[in-house]
Amino acid sequence: MGMTMTQKILAKHSGNKYVAPGMLISAKVDMVLGNDITAPVAIKEFEKIGAEKVFDTEKIALVPDHFTPNKDIKSAEQVKLMRNFARKMGIKHFFEIGQMGVEHALLPELGLVTAGDLVIGADSHTCTYGALGAFSTGVGSTDMAAAMVTGEVWLKVPEAIKFNLIGKPGEWVSGKDIILHIIGQIGVDGALYKSMEFTGEGLEFLTMDDRFTIANMAIEAGAKNGIFEVDDETLKYIAEHSSKPYEVFTADSDAEYVREYTIDLSKIKPTVALPHLPENTRPVDEIGDIPIDQVVIGSCTNGRIEDMRIAAKILAGRKVHKNVRCIIIPATQNVWKQCLKEGLFDIFIEAGCAVSTPTCGPCLGGHMGILAEGERAVATTNRNFVGRMGHVKSEVYLASPAVAAASAVAGKIVSPAAIMD
Amino acid sequence: MGMTMTQKILAKHSGNKYVAPGMLISAKVDMVLGNDITAPVAIKEFEKIGAEKVFDTEKIALVPDHFTPNKDIKSAEQVKLMRNFARKMGIKHFFEIGQMGVEHALLPELGLVTAGDLVIGADSHTCTYGALGAFSTGVGSTDMAAAMVTGEVWLKVPEAIKFNLIGKPGEWVSGKDIILHIIGQIGVDGALYKSMEFTGEGLEFLTMDDRFTIANMAIEAGAKNGIFEVDDETLKYIAEHSSKPYEVFTADSDAEYVREYTIDLSKIKPTVALPHLPENTRPVDEIGDIPIDQVVIGSCTNGRIEDMRIAAKILAGRKVHKNVRCIIIPATQNVWKQCLKEGLFDIFIEAGCAVSTPTCGPCLGGHMGILAEGERAVATTNRNFVGRMGHVKSEVYLASPAVAAASAVAGKIVSPAAIMD
Repeated sequence: MGMTMTQKILAKHSGNKYVAPGMLISAKVDMVLGNDITAPVAIKEFEKIGAEKVFDTEKIALVPDHFTPNKDIKSAEQVKLMRNFARKMGIKHFFEIGQMGVEHALLPELGLVTAGDLVIGADSHTCTYGALGAFSTGVGSTDMAAAMVTGEVWLKVPEAIKFNLIGKPGEWVSGKDIILHIIGQIGVDGALYKSMEFTGEGLEFLTMDDRFTIANMAIEAGAKNGIFEVDDETLKYIAEHSSKPYEVFTADSDAEYVREYTIDLSKIKPTVALPHLPENTRPVDEIGDIPIDQVVIGSCTNGRIEDMRIAAKILAGRKVHKNVRCIIIPATQNVWKQCLKEGLFDIFIEAGCAVSTPTCGPCLGGHMGILAEGERAVATTNRNFVGRMGHVKSEVYLASPAVAAASAVAGKIVSPAAIMD
Repeated sequence: MGMTMTQKILAKHSGNKYVAPGMLISAKVDMVLGNDITAPVAIKEFEKIGAEKVFDTEKIALVPDHFTPNKDIKSAEQVKLMRNFARKMGIKHFFEIGQMGVEHALLPELGLVTAGDLVIGADSHTCTYGALGAFSTGVGSTDMAAAMVTGEVWLKVPEAIKFNLIGKPGEWVSGKDIILHIIGQIGVDGALYKSMEFTGEGLEFLTMDDRFTIANMAIEAGAKNGIFEVDDETLKYIAEHSSKPYEVFTADSDAEYVREYTIDLSKIKPTVALPHLPENTRPVDEIGDIPIDQVVIGSCTNGRIEDMRIAAKILAGRKVHKNVRCIIIPATQNVWKQCLKEGLFDIFIEAGCAVSTPTCGPCLGGHMGILAEGERAVATTNRNFVGRMGHVKSEVYLASPAVAAASAVAGKIVSPAAIMD
């Protein structure tokens, strides 16, 4: 029996010639990630174990992105703990605000993760790096602590689901619409502890930013990881961003999948996930009149340069609706810089948006745009659970940057086509 | 007996030909201001009174600047309350994020306050507008509520102190150094319930932004208000920003001052206020080696375009020290836009700063850069009380944008001259 992309990476990193779903393995990690919520817990565990040094000072990334710039004393203390640990241990990849970014946008951009890597992170959206043909998954802080000591992690080899992408997406359809559509189809537990393996001729129409968005939300279907076949687009991205050695793993033709889906990208419409689950999806044209109070464009899901460009294309020469606060949060300092260079901020500011420094901020109800009771937001983020962005009686509608920007202008949730005439 | 500038404005607004220090008057207000901390309290008082409408929909400004973009649910609820009140009452000057700014930078910039005005605000730094030759002072939320109903406020006419400014400030000496020097000289209660009246030939060397900074910190010497003689510079600013009618009040030659100081600007050096009072001032060259963790450049005191330009001049081609987080917060959306236009953000980002959307943020320990235990910040803000920017065991050093930017580069508190060779 052959192996899938995920299984091949896990075999390689666990020193096995072959792994099968269900096997428990101990695998070497290429990168261990923690943020300002999870790393402090892991660091305390690390110290409790009595460990004196980390397994590799270059294979740990500590990114204080959730509540930074420090929202309050508690978050300041959390970041201080990370900073002190990084200095004491000589950890190379600690990121201060000003060089910082949302972890899952930052690591690929800096080339710290690449094809064939095995990456764990104490954050559920660590699955993002699957876009690069890596195995990456979220773990708990205790696993993070152990990996910082040993450089290894225990994993159960997941079963695989194959997503065969065909067709060319229509106008205003991006990675976000595709993954929302898929989650709508299979449900938030549709890929529970499985790997979602994306392949097919439709890949050629997906930019890397589209793929990051799709892999990022694999966890929202319950998946252990999401992974994309490596193609020329991937190799180009890697060449531009990373000097790390990489390895391309291709699924065997006789690899086993517990399910296979064919997704025709040409049939997907701009899609929104209604409260309070990412699976509550509907084409934006079918949701009727839903007035909104806030729009958030950013996060590890959709805060990359392409997301900013799409938002700018729609906001150019238009004004944010008077009843709407539109908050734009480039995911990293480099994205911020690129927006500056391309004149996107001129467009955003002219339209009446607030432009934030990189932070996860409102996505997780952290800061930088929290909702009051009864308020409604369209967000390019990844979760719309009850109270996710603030009050338990607030609502989050998940959408692409195009839909979010169009909705900011209209004051209600609309398709980009509705305002781009 | 003649009257001072302040007394003349109070006489005019109370319908008296003459007022003397100590008199209790009821005066008409030209502008009533509240923010997201104080306005909600005032609005509840307003509703408790049973008032049905405000005295004038164009003479009230509601600026949610302290904890915005909403830091948490509580702040979101506060802003919602303001927004709903503004909509219900038809109040014209409510500012959403994206059009917003720090109140005391915003109102002059938009021409909502001008020479001869009487302005009250439920915020202690309302005294800022004295730079325009207005009487402006901070009041409690109850006074704000009453003024929203009646358009009047009870005031006790303050005694006056005259500050005769002479000489030309040296390089790197700005309004911030001047007011810190003065507070260092007279103490934090040196002008208790008095008006600080600034005049003299030295005025010609002070830009409007210098004067806003100086008037802004009058409250830090305990003053009821600070006020500047109107000159060509003032009239030019007013012409560029405001279409409101204005009136210039000049002190009578026999006006009475309880004290007079002559301040030789040419003798003032770049000055820092050490923890934990604004009066603990010392020339920056005399404070020795004090390493720092954070720099904040912004606030109603020093977040204007000139402040940004000075910071950029120093940061250009340099890097923020690796141990320092440097947070730059343009005070208003217009300042933000101007920074963008002039390329200042390119400099800040290249240097490794985080650039925030306008907010009061860290100045009052609100959000956007709170300090952990033992951390030390240089800030262009106005107060360095115990715990002001975070933990009770953190420290804030007040300084000009020039000193703050230079310190960000050096990693310790230094004079701009120390790094500009």
